[in-house]
Amino acid sequence: MTGAENLVQALLDAGIEVCFTNPGTSEMHFLTAINTIKKMRPILTLFEGVATGAADGYARMADKPACTLLHLGPGLGNGIANLHNARKARSPMVNIVGDHATYHKSNETPLRSDVESIARPISHWVRTSYHPDVIAWDGAEAAAEAKKAPGHIATLILPADVSWSESKSQPPKMSLVQRPPRVAPEKIRDLASILSSGERAFILMSGKALRQKGLQAAARIAAKVKAELYCDTFISRLERGAGAAKINRLPYFAEQSSKRFEGIQHLILVESSRPESFFAYPNKPTRLIPGDCQVHILATPEEDSIQALCDLAEKMGVSHGDYPTYTPFRPELPTGELNPMSVAATIGALMPENAIVCDESGTSGGGLMKLTGGAPKHDWLNMTGGSIGQALPLSVGAAVACPDRKVICLSGDGGAMYTIQSLWTQARENLDVVNVIFANRAYAILTQELKRVGVENGIEFIDPLFQLDHPKLDFCQLANGMGVKAFRATTADEFNVHFKNGVNTKGPMLIEVVL
Amino acid sequence: MTGAENLVQALLDAGIEVCFTNPGTSEMHFLTAINTIKKMRPILTLFEGVATGAADGYARMADKPACTLLHLGPGLGNGIANLHNARKARSPMVNIVGDHATYHKSNETPLRSDVESIARPISHWVRTSYHPDVIAWDGAEAAAEAKKAPGHIATLILPADVSWSESKSQPPKMSLVQRPPRVAPEKIRDLASILSSGERAFILMSGKALRQKGLQAAARIAAKVKAELYCDTFISRLERGAGAAKINRLPYFAEQSSKRFEGIQHLILVESSRPESFFAYPNKPTRLIPGDCQVHILATPEEDSIQALCDLAEKMGVSHGDYPTYTPFRPELPTGELNPMSVAATIGALMPENAIVCDESGTSGGGLMKLTGGAPKHDWLNMTGGSIGQALPLSVGAAVACPDRKVICLSGDGGAMYTIQSLWTQARENLDVVNVIFANRAYAILTQELKRVGVENGIEFIDPLFQLDHPKLDFCQLANGMGVKAFRATTADEFNVHFKNGVNTKGPMLIEVVL
Repeated sequence: MTGAENLVQALLDAGIEVCFTNPGTSEMHFLTAINTIKKMRPILTLFEGVATGAADGYARMADKPACTLLHLGPGLGNGIANLHNARKARSPMVNIVGDHATYHKSNETPLRSDVESIARPISHWVRTSYHPDVIAWDGAEAAAEAKKAPGHIATLILPADVSWSESKSQPPKMSLVQRPPRVAPEKIRDLASILSSGERAFILMSGKALRQKGLQAAARIAAKVKAELYCDTFISRLERGAGAAKINRLPYFAEQSSKRFEGIQHLILVESSRPESFFAYPNKPTRLIPGDCQVHILATPEEDSIQALCDLAEKMGVSHGDYPTYTPFRPELPTGELNPMSVAATIGALMPENAIVCDESGTSGGGLMKLTGGAPKHDWLNMTGGSIGQALPLSVGAAVACPDRKVICLSGDGGAMYTIQSLWTQARENLDVVNVIFANRAYAILTQELKRVGVENGIEFIDPLFQLDHPKLDFCQLANGMGVKAFRATTADEFNVHFKNGVNTKGPMLIEVVL
Repeated sequence: MTGAENLVQALLDAGIEVCFTNPGTSEMHFLTAINTIKKMRPILTLFEGVATGAADGYARMADKPACTLLHLGPGLGNGIANLHNARKARSPMVNIVGDHATYHKSNETPLRSDVESIARPISHWVRTSYHPDVIAWDGAEAAAEAKKAPGHIATLILPADVSWSESKSQPPKMSLVQRPPRVAPEKIRDLASILSSGERAFILMSGKALRQKGLQAAARIAAKVKAELYCDTFISRLERGAGAAKINRLPYFAEQSSKRFEGIQHLILVESSRPESFFAYPNKPTRLIPGDCQVHILATPEEDSIQALCDLAEKMGVSHGDYPTYTPFRPELPTGELNPMSVAATIGALMPENAIVCDESGTSGGGLMKLTGGAPKHDWLNMTGGSIGQALPLSVGAAVACPDRKVICLSGDGGAMYTIQSLWTQARENLDVVNVIFANRAYAILTQELKRVGVENGIEFIDPLFQLDHPKLDFCQLANGMGVKAFRATTADEFNVHFKNGVNTKGPMLIEVVL
């Protein structure tokens, strides 16, 4: 048995069944091990940013890690942006990064790179496996680290000779159940008392708390004491739709979100951090809450937030009974002009039950949350780390995790071009994804942000840097070039037809929404 | 004057005139400064890996740094692979990386990232500029660091508030001439004596030594003492072509390159490192030279290698006179089957004088060096760090640096898909590039490498991971989708027509070579 075989078996024993990869020579024995064992599904991507983003999407929907297989420092480097996003999503993931053979690492070869240092800023746990006799343990520990609440990035570096050498160790029998700690009853009691005080409260949630069990408890609590109930602007996964417990989403711009906090006396954080604006701006505060607002942490991301919400609901005597839900509602199919609101209406009108929405619609997404809340139950996944180019890879992983569910990928044109190679993997694996590209031919957010930082006029010299219209990107040709069928919509009616077609047929397709 | 204005002026004073960028909100004031000063040329890319690769290509051809402008940790992360390649090419480059405002950096926002730690593994010099009154100095020092011989990666992190605040410092007057140290005459004398001993010698060159002045001196020396004269397999820039001093290129595979060293008693390194195989393989040595071969360093990359070669030639009495050159030779235009050799013949037959070749042809490039050596003088640029996806960005930068020269970009299909977004910038800037994509529908090197690591049969489960034929990538549609005209060649005759058209017309075009 080689070191690589021992490692693959250890990962399989830990429930890691999918490997998103773009491999190179140093990973050949890991692939050979996959070939020998034939239980791990290898999925090829054309670029590592697709692999890491896909592993994130997979983890969010499968609630367990996939692994990636990457090629030395540069291969890992290409995956960093979406590892950053995955880290902010608190997604579990195991990266296996091939490296030169131990005795070859110090030779000044083209691919010599400091893999550990590249891994550290975006990993919770980094280890190089230096001997084939410990590799199974290393793999099992990497998986266990990844699964630590709320979800960690574990990076295991695998020198080629450790991979190909005979390995005597058997995969260890490790207990792989990771239970986050339960919040102390004293804290539950204190918060119940604060919430019942009649003072104005605001519950801000993130992470696993946004699954229905947590949302229902939170909605019951908020309804009882008339607290505001919000989730973060950028969330990993929100279960919502007709009949589901309802929650508001914090707006992106600080001017708008700080308004929501006006007059609030108590802020209760559930897996969320203190609310700050996304960016800082000249002469504008980054703090969003009033100066005299008291902040209380119900559950950190490391704690069992769902249990905490259930415990709190019980303490407050609202464990059962009704909670505010999204009223079933389908917008009318729009007609005429195609614009972000009409697109949102079409999606709300036609999205199927159990859809998974991967949302990086940016400035084009304004109407989406409102017009889809009443659609049948679905999951909503955001870009989490502010690094554009996540939605397309995310859709790959979500579709692999949930082959029986329709994935709807919503992306701005700028972000889509970051990881456009995702379409090829969608085609190759025949993933059930409708990609909607909002082609406004601009980094529209930047023209807004430029004004917000105080620059308004006389920017002719740099204005072209915000425009994607010279030349125009033709997403239909790009999709066709990677084997994905594609359609262009220039009116709401055309979009209705194409989107309906997309949700009613299996397999990947793309719609370029010309705005 | 803002901090950003002071910084842009300092960079301009240091001769940095081009900025390859994909900016975000935190870079708005740097862009505004570019807008105000109107002397730095900003070039938009759709992905940071294009920006860093383009800055590398620019540096190799302009012999001075460009700057990049990147967006926090993830934006820098996307640029890492081609920064790795640029570092191995020893290209000078200044990265300006925007970061959150100093007082906003510790807030747990989506884009919070440890920019310094991400920068360090691929930078020679990293600094965060924490105050607008020192920013001009920081910028000048970053440029000076980048220009240190042989060429460094300098990364300056620019918090948004330092960028937007009023800055009192004037740009410093710094001496920006960086001269590498001259090799001591004792060493020149010793090496002259060794080379004149009659024992078998091998001169291995890299870096700036591969410009004609260095090559001519080396060729005269090698001819006099019948030494072997070689350059590294992957070189930053080689000046070659009809009438130019001739040099051999070390083969990629260790079995082949170690044969070239057989019987060699003295290895003379000129900006090169000790020869080792690219990867390690089970039961194969990585060392390429015989055990009893003596190694001598004529010049390190930090030293003035061209001067050292000239000094050595003078010491050996061969400063003037003839040296072996490439004989002017144009292959006949091939006809019939399209294959790597026919493509090489067409390129050799038709490439114009002063062409710049960006070569990442991989397994399809076997015949290129032989069949182009006799073409009119040109520059040859390789992928340098083993991280595929460099040729297309490199061609962007080379074309920006040398607008009057034709750039010929040769890329495998696998590598091209890494940074395919380069085509859009080629179209946008109307860069004079003929892109030749070798579409063998495979990561062909990996099927070879799999055999070399000892795996031959029964790989049906993983074999699809090496194939790019499901679905087939249509590079003509991909190019058209980004505004670049494209043609498909399936016979040698078709390729002749398209390539001739490509070299005879200005602007970008792509030829998909179906192998």
